[in-house]
Amino acid sequence: MRCIPRTACGSRKGRAKSRLIFAAAAINLIATASAQAADPISLRDMGSFHVGGRLVEISGKPVKEVTFTPGGVPAKVDPNGVYQVEQMYVQYFLPANEHGAYPLLMWHGGGLTGVTWETTPDGREGWLTYFLRKGWSVYNSDAVERGRAGWAQYPDIFKSDPVFLTTANPFERFRIGDGPNSYASDPAKRKVMPGSQFPVEAYENFVKQGVPRWTTNDDATIAAYIAEIDRVGPSIVMVHSQSGSFGFKVAQARPDKVKALIAVEPAAIGDPAKVEALKNVPILIVYGDYIDRDSRWPKMRAAGVAFADSIKAAGGSVDVIDLPQVGIKGNSHMVMMDKNNAEVAGLIQGWLERKGLTK
Amino acid sequence: MRCIPRTACGSRKGRAKSRLIFAAAAINLIATASAQAADPISLRDMGSFHVGGRLVEISGKPVKEVTFTPGGVPAKVDPNGVYQVEQMYVQYFLPANEHGAYPLLMWHGGGLTGVTWETTPDGREGWLTYFLRKGWSVYNSDAVERGRAGWAQYPDIFKSDPVFLTTANPFERFRIGDGPNSYASDPAKRKVMPGSQFPVEAYENFVKQGVPRWTTNDDATIAAYIAEIDRVGPSIVMVHSQSGSFGFKVAQARPDKVKALIAVEPAAIGDPAKVEALKNVPILIVYGDYIDRDSRWPKMRAAGVAFADSIKAAGGSVDVIDLPQVGIKGNSHMVMMDKNNAEVAGLIQGWLERKGLTK
Repeated sequence: MRCIPRTACGSRKGRAKSRLIFAAAAINLIATASAQAADPISLRDMGSFHVGGRLVEISGKPVKEVTFTPGGVPAKVDPNGVYQVEQMYVQYFLPANEHGAYPLLMWHGGGLTGVTWETTPDGREGWLTYFLRKGWSVYNSDAVERGRAGWAQYPDIFKSDPVFLTTANPFERFRIGDGPNSYASDPAKRKVMPGSQFPVEAYENFVKQGVPRWTTNDDATIAAYIAEIDRVGPSIVMVHSQSGSFGFKVAQARPDKVKALIAVEPAAIGDPAKVEALKNVPILIVYGDYIDRDSRWPKMRAAGVAFADSIKAAGGSVDVIDLPQVGIKGNSHMVMMDKNNAEVAGLIQGWLERKGLTK
Repeated sequence: MRCIPRTACGSRKGRAKSRLIFAAAAINLIATASAQAADPISLRDMGSFHVGGRLVEISGKPVKEVTFTPGGVPAKVDPNGVYQVEQMYVQYFLPANEHGAYPLLMWHGGGLTGVTWETTPDGREGWLTYFLRKGWSVYNSDAVERGRAGWAQYPDIFKSDPVFLTTANPFERFRIGDGPNSYASDPAKRKVMPGSQFPVEAYENFVKQGVPRWTTNDDATIAAYIAEIDRVGPSIVMVHSQSGSFGFKVAQARPDKVKALIAVEPAAIGDPAKVEALKNVPILIVYGDYIDRDSRWPKMRAAGVAFADSIKAAGGSVDVIDLPQVGIKGNSHMVMMDKNNAEVAGLIQGWLERKGLTK
């Protein structure tokens, strides 16, 4: 059933259907095709770079002697001097056959990194390769303060302490578990949202993706995202959670360069005084399930809908989709990891196509 | 001059030569082909996962209220509880046409992440895609404590303070600049090693790749690398600098699974009491230039050579290559980023071929 690229195998849908039939007929003879056995990904290029940041001088501290590697030779480390801080990491994958009108920039949420968009915690295909396979040039970043962007001394440079999350915290806060005290160390005792699409059996792997976060680096993060878009050029921006705020604010700062904004479960909005700047930026906002069962999300969703309304009142175009209202149920805050992530990605892909942003 | 894949364009070398001749003839008419204009990379799959780590409980600390995103709704964060720590991040790229007998695991050095192996600071192709194009399945990791692996509270979990490096430090310590005080904020005033191959014009971009490091996480890092190799299976391991120690020690722990070890500028060695375990692991050690001009590297190189000799005395096979002695001059500690990085990668590829590790 393997389909050689560029031969007449019919549509992807057709192939999937015939594969199913074939599998049903021969299930005892061969292993069924997994997501990993999909068509090859052909890249015209891939790579990475850092953007943005600034230099900061620190002075008046004592020199240390550090043996970096046991058995190595001690080196003097003078902590006084100039530090490079607040840069951001960007990794890009450019498809051989491009079908996106603009590159797609993926901006993860708080306490996480670009890993958000990669393979799901239970090993299925994530949105990075979903959109890459659809022909989008994908730029996936680790924002200021985390992942491959690095982080800076606090409180000297970063102004607050970092926040570390227990294994229980995202379970109860990301609408995976059914509210406070839904988490238990024993997976069998966890109270999962009824009908949840989150791959709860791989929750431990999701927790491994978490990184410490600060609450005082928003301006630096926005500056780095602006540096990214200034470098990459006109782009479509896809944000999640914390980066909802960054996406709206960067689009307000660079309305000529943000050609569309897709906000997945935005935790915060842009500058209400600058909605006018967004009137020519097509915007899609997507919310998952269980919002009414959560203590914080009704207010956060209401803020997003009100912001959308104010953009529309200024002449802009915003589509707000509550997934349960279009028949897609069970989504947690981590929509891109949920078991129906391809279905939601397909909804976004369809929106991009209807907006004329594919080629 | 663009060569369509799978058509008769001749060998890569032949193409490069004809491209040069063509460029010389037509230099005023067209832009010459850049490294980015190479053949597409065809992947049968790509993705990422986390491995290893452990759970640690912290207790007795006060609950905090944190507003994660300005304008968001405050959430209670109870720092007491169980934390996932010391896991490691691995990103993989599997070529459609595999020519490596085993996957190639790339382990970066101290204060850095897997970005070490990606695009060079001046935008040329790095070793990740070099070896991927040669048909190796490449697994590139961010070790414990950095990058997408995340990091843990100190001193509660990590036992020392993190070390931050000034912009000057790697310049003077990585044999880019000519020793102490060779760095200056004005690039024109920097004293670069004579004949250096490091892309000094992009030194600022290299500094952006740096991340904080600890000096007390070696055991956790080794455990995570062992978890990686236990998951991926028999592999070839390529290490750099700090991870020299990790590579040798993991090979000593899993001599059946480490099918070859390539140590690029190892800063430290394995367990001298267990050299016997390495006798069936083909090993290549590569050192760059300027070692005699440095205050620390003569001792570090001597330790590596002595370790190699002890492995050989136990019946093992170790090739030690000092690049200047084979006519490859000007290499810094960051060999994989130097302007002649493809030449050195070619030397390693040739060694792998001669060892029968390609197919």
